[in-house]
Amino acid sequence: MLAVLRTPYLLFLGDVQIASDAKTGAGIAYWRREQCCGQLRLPGCKADIGLPDLDLEQAREAGAQSLIIGVAAMGGAFEPQWIETLREAARSGLDIVSGMHTSLNDIPGLTELAAAHGSRLIDVRVPPRGLHVANGVRRSGLRLLTVGTDCAVGKKYTALAMDRALRQRGRKSSFRATGQTGIMIAGSGIPIDAVVSDFVAGAAEALSPANEPDHWDVVEGQGSLFNPCYAGVTLGLLHGTQADALVLCHDPSRTAIEGVEGYPIPPLNVCIARYVEAARLTNPRVRCIGIAVNSSGLPAGDHAKRRAAIEAETGLPCVDPILDGVDALVDALDTAFGRVSSPA
Amino acid sequence: MLAVLRTPYLLFLGDVQIASDAKTGAGIAYWRREQCCGQLRLPGCKADIGLPDLDLEQAREAGAQSLIIGVAAMGGAFEPQWIETLREAARSGLDIVSGMHTSLNDIPGLTELAAAHGSRLIDVRVPPRGLHVANGVRRSGLRLLTVGTDCAVGKKYTALAMDRALRQRGRKSSFRATGQTGIMIAGSGIPIDAVVSDFVAGAAEALSPANEPDHWDVVEGQGSLFNPCYAGVTLGLLHGTQADALVLCHDPSRTAIEGVEGYPIPPLNVCIARYVEAARLTNPRVRCIGIAVNSSGLPAGDHAKRRAAIEAETGLPCVDPILDGVDALVDALDTAFGRVSSPA
Repeated sequence: MLAVLRTPYLLFLGDVQIASDAKTGAGIAYWRREQCCGQLRLPGCKADIGLPDLDLEQAREAGAQSLIIGVAAMGGAFEPQWIETLREAARSGLDIVSGMHTSLNDIPGLTELAAAHGSRLIDVRVPPRGLHVANGVRRSGLRLLTVGTDCAVGKKYTALAMDRALRQRGRKSSFRATGQTGIMIAGSGIPIDAVVSDFVAGAAEALSPANEPDHWDVVEGQGSLFNPCYAGVTLGLLHGTQADALVLCHDPSRTAIEGVEGYPIPPLNVCIARYVEAARLTNPRVRCIGIAVNSSGLPAGDHAKRRAAIEAETGLPCVDPILDGVDALVDALDTAFGRVSSPA
Repeated sequence: MLAVLRTPYLLFLGDVQIASDAKTGAGIAYWRREQCCGQLRLPGCKADIGLPDLDLEQAREAGAQSLIIGVAAMGGAFEPQWIETLREAARSGLDIVSGMHTSLNDIPGLTELAAAHGSRLIDVRVPPRGLHVANGVRRSGLRLLTVGTDCAVGKKYTALAMDRALRQRGRKSSFRATGQTGIMIAGSGIPIDAVVSDFVAGAAEALSPANEPDHWDVVEGQGSLFNPCYAGVTLGLLHGTQADALVLCHDPSRTAIEGVEGYPIPPLNVCIARYVEAARLTNPRVRCIGIAVNSSGLPAGDHAKRRAAIEAETGLPCVDPILDGVDALVDALDTAFGRVSSPA
């Protein structure tokens, strides 16, 4: 049901004038270097994500299967000067994968070219067909969901880091993507906020299906229970995931929800209590095992003091995944759920 | 943005073999008798909702503007023996309004006929275009939302009854529909469970826009915070509505959520506390003003005793809207929010 992206990837960076506009590509290269064969940059491109520069012919020789649009520019439309490259990629049989607002099928002639050359056009903002209403039935396997005090506080990064750390310890773990960049990194997933509301919990069930008893699905959270625009998305994802473990993600430079007026972020212990209360509906044994902060907006020198204060306030381990790694959170998972190693 | 259905309605009952399959039509006739000119029944139809029988020509003479498919049969598909009547309705310029799963546009030739004769084909399961993410900004006017201990416990009926009672007392009130039958009754609305999850709270804001300070929007609730399949839909609707008042709807014959295994309905006071807690995010002054029970599954003779027990348990007035009416709930609204009468 979920489309699976074909690897290796050729990451297309266009001719972005601001390096951070290639952050989607940079994220893919950071988390899945082994499935990227190169970057394709048009003349004048100001970004460089550290992969070999390949043109389409070189990429084909390197075995590339998918051209990934690694650009997240404002507006989300394809630039006219990209079009010929996308057409040429379709002609060469590469799948083209995009998270842009505009559909690949709206590029004149691209649908026909892709059909003629066995290329798939994959818009990762479009949910898969065949989603169902949730059934609420408990399923085997373990699940961790990253939840937030607000949107854009590091839920994807934390989930990816937890998944990587678990696998580095020899555990069975899968990162489960719910947003467009996450889907490109994981190679599959469901853009949960684009799912019809009736099917959100069911989509979350489909995303993290029954698995081995010692297997962790580490699910990328979306939105926040405290954001008046998206809390319903968050709750549906939380219920369908049937999370065993939660990690609360927080940006300590923020005191109020961004993008709306007049919504203060509650104290962390209130946030934890509300998430656990909501999650208990579908998994009574759920617990919050730690806090992940995104400290990038605050002086790095104060981090240790801030972290200690949060640990004292909540009684839970706190890390900045970028500054500290997430070992303390995996240790907390062990304490809460037991050390479940894969046979290897 | 919201389509407005044109009245008067001609209610189409097809050739249903079970009278209750015409319950959509019966509901429209019950709540909006004044906007219905008649019923159209095919040979062998076993339902009769008490309106004059009209054929299409008689309906045109009576001024009918819309043919409403008043059938809610299992499966939700158009019966082959209905098609010619629907085509003839389009030819005569009537709008055709349907809540069936199948789209009116999938009936061969109907789209073209409708376009040629100025008839609109309106699928009330399809959300309007142009919905936005919520903005969370407080707006003027008063809003009441019916919420449930589960799905299908009388939220639509209770909202319609509250709206009617308010208007009978000379208040300003509008029923705001969130489901297909409600939309047919109200003549407009948004099928909230078909809205993309990101836009649910925004759709609820659009559905009950800023209004006069003494105007009540009585919003039809959907789903339940305690149903693991739909709680996210419920929360988005609750947040976007910014409800001032809640009425908790409950079926006292039910001890667990229907359609899923292992989800008991919490005690009523827990349900109330959870709804109020969730609703406070967007409206800190929200309060639950009463309980509406659907007693149809229990012996009528015990109703007074059950009602008294619920009132003792919750400290709030309790009615069965069908057995008792909703005057006690409107009285409770007065007590909580003051008696705000329209100038007339």
